Amino acid sequence: MMVNSTGSAGSKHLIALVGFGTVATGLCKILLEKREHLSAAHGFDFEIVAVSTRSRGTIYNPQGFSLPELINLSQSTTPFENHLQDWDSEAMIRKSNATVVVELAHTDLNTAEPALTHCRAAFETGKHVISGNKGPAAIAYSELSALASKHKLLFLNEATVLSGTPVFSFVHNTLGGNRIKRIRGILNGTTNFILSEMQSGSSYESTLAVAADRGYLEADPAADIEGYDAQAKLAILANILLDTPLELGQVKRSGISSITSEDIKAAEQEGKRWKLVGTLSIENNTVQAEVKAEKLPLDDPLAQVMGTLNAITFSTDLLGDITITGPGAGSIETGYSILSDLLILNGQETS
Amino acid sequence: MMVNSTGSAGSKHLIALVGFGTVATGLCKILLEKREHLSAAHGFDFEIVAVSTRSRGTIYNPQGFSLPELINLSQSTTPFENHLQDWDSEAMIRKSNATVVVELAHTDLNTAEPALTHCRAAFETGKHVISGNKGPAAIAYSELSALASKHKLLFLNEATVLSGTPVFSFVHNTLGGNRIKRIRGILNGTTNFILSEMQSGSSYESTLAVAADRGYLEADPAADIEGYDAQAKLAILANILLDTPLELGQVKRSGISSITSEDIKAAEQEGKRWKLVGTLSIENNTVQAEVKAEKLPLDDPLAQVMGTLNAITFSTDLLGDITITGPGAGSIETGYSILSDLLILNGQETS
Repeated sequence: MMVNSTGSAGSKHLIALVGFGTVATGLCKILLEKREHLSAAHGFDFEIVAVSTRSRGTIYNPQGFSLPELINLSQSTTPFENHLQDWDSEAMIRKSNATVVVELAHTDLNTAEPALTHCRAAFETGKHVISGNKGPAAIAYSELSALASKHKLLFLNEATVLSGTPVFSFVHNTLGGNRIKRIRGILNGTTNFILSEMQSGSSYESTLAVAADRGYLEADPAADIEGYDAQAKLAILANILLDTPLELGQVKRSGISSITSEDIKAAEQEGKRWKLVGTLSIENNTVQAEVKAEKLPLDDPLAQVMGTLNAITFSTDLLGDITITGPGAGSIETGYSILSDLLILNGQETS
Repeated sequence: MMVNSTGSAGSKHLIALVGFGTVATGLCKILLEKREHLSAAHGFDFEIVAVSTRSRGTIYNPQGFSLPELINLSQSTTPFENHLQDWDSEAMIRKSNATVVVELAHTDLNTAEPALTHCRAAFETGKHVISGNKGPAAIAYSELSALASKHKLLFLNEATVLSGTPVFSFVHNTLGGNRIKRIRGILNGTTNFILSEMQSGSSYESTLAVAADRGYLEADPAADIEGYDAQAKLAILANILLDTPLELGQVKRSGISSITSEDIKAAEQEGKRWKLVGTLSIENNTVQAEVKAEKLPLDDPLAQVMGTLNAITFSTDLLGDITITGPGAGSIETGYSILSDLLILNGQETS
């Protein structure tokens, strides 16, 4: 029987949540359901000691909150009872006894704030950061990973790309020893859902309405439709997996808003499908990065990825192409990616 | 920057190869090309100290052979010069200074011999085993993993299923925390190649001849065609991933020999494709296991896996379905799976 790399007993992780939306709720539900299993199989023990939000305030219990109580609290949107008047998120990060900050605040792809401030505050006060927020790793990865290293801390971002599907863990832990030559993926579930629905005969407008109705669209729909979300994810993939810092603006970007039902039909007659594809390729030590809609032949593994699924094909020197397909959104699924990072943290601390 | 779980410096691994065919050659080529990278990035240092074969004898150098010399030797089939007259494979395993035995001898799915004797000899004398041979894990996994545990050794089998694609590492290291509810895969590249070619209009007989010509067929073609290879892989998946020992005979099995060109065409008209699918499902704590040809709708991810590619869909409690698609054969690819296990071993020893 193989011992899992994250096995053996560790000290207790004290978790602070910044942001308390669907991902945080998903994480709390998983932690409640799996507490005993995580302790027995992974030596992973934890408490959630703080929750901080922009609109509901900050609550703190250095001994840890009960998970059912937190899940109950997550169903409401009113300000927390007993919230600390003088602790905003940054103060909580700096002053609490948390050992790891889970950053799930609102994503801003222009400044990465307030997440950037949160990450700096965590590292400066000796706390690991697990970010489900794309801002920090898309915009300030080099600075933050250097700051984390300086303080012997981890900066982990599994939930930012292919939400539920752990790609960074996959490359680091499962493909170790391979050189990655190209990364190509369907990184945005919303646009893939829209293109899949249009494929089935729906109009762009009606499909967009369905996507909005199901909560698939970001607060600013352009984030999905015009490719900004996929652009940020491609920058994060380059920053983390290729060790090649990439400015967000270096990733060429276009979206799907110009694709018509006629384009979809025409592609179908050619035996092809339109997909919004992000590609990172390395040539002569230079990374080329681009997000754009492409007509893929049906035998391309990415052509078969329908609905809100995501997928990435890694082209490697030893194994050729390896494709991983899985969920790209969802409360439990994205919550799992946070847990995946917590288990990596646990494995590192005990090794 | 995340530290790889297999990072940090370890002691030198002394490798004994049992069997010296295409997989061993692929491994030697990878180790030659990547020696510096593996040492720098993974703290993985090694020597190959012994090679033992049935027909060419055993060579041994406790300080380690040069890799170019071994690769050169692998091009020939004549008995080794300077081979040790009184050391067969078992004697080499028992008496050499190797710390890890890579078992690549001929696969026998009836008795698992001589691999079973090799594994026992290794564990009894304090050596880890990495097996690319399906026999031991398909037939005697419980016994061997217990024996390995007793001696605080590892018994690793990455190369036995989806050769080049590290599925055991994926589940243990990347999906940790999930409960697996079902495993469904295209586990045999040869039959998938034959069905793909028939899909393109070739007859069963001519396709079988092409497969034989390209070296895709096992020594006994029935091992592929009648599903014995996939049956063994399904037993191994159950034994390693589900912690549920499964006798080989408990895996129901049928093959593809009864599928005609007419069946393929009829399926195509229904919008379906024939595939040889292995399924493990867990219901009421009982594992059901079966290999059989199935007509899959085109939107099933497994329907899109063509040629010699392999794929597995893991159905999990937290993430739903995750599919991994990659090479199922090849000298370098399968050699990589052995390296993947060596890196796990290295990570465990240094943690």
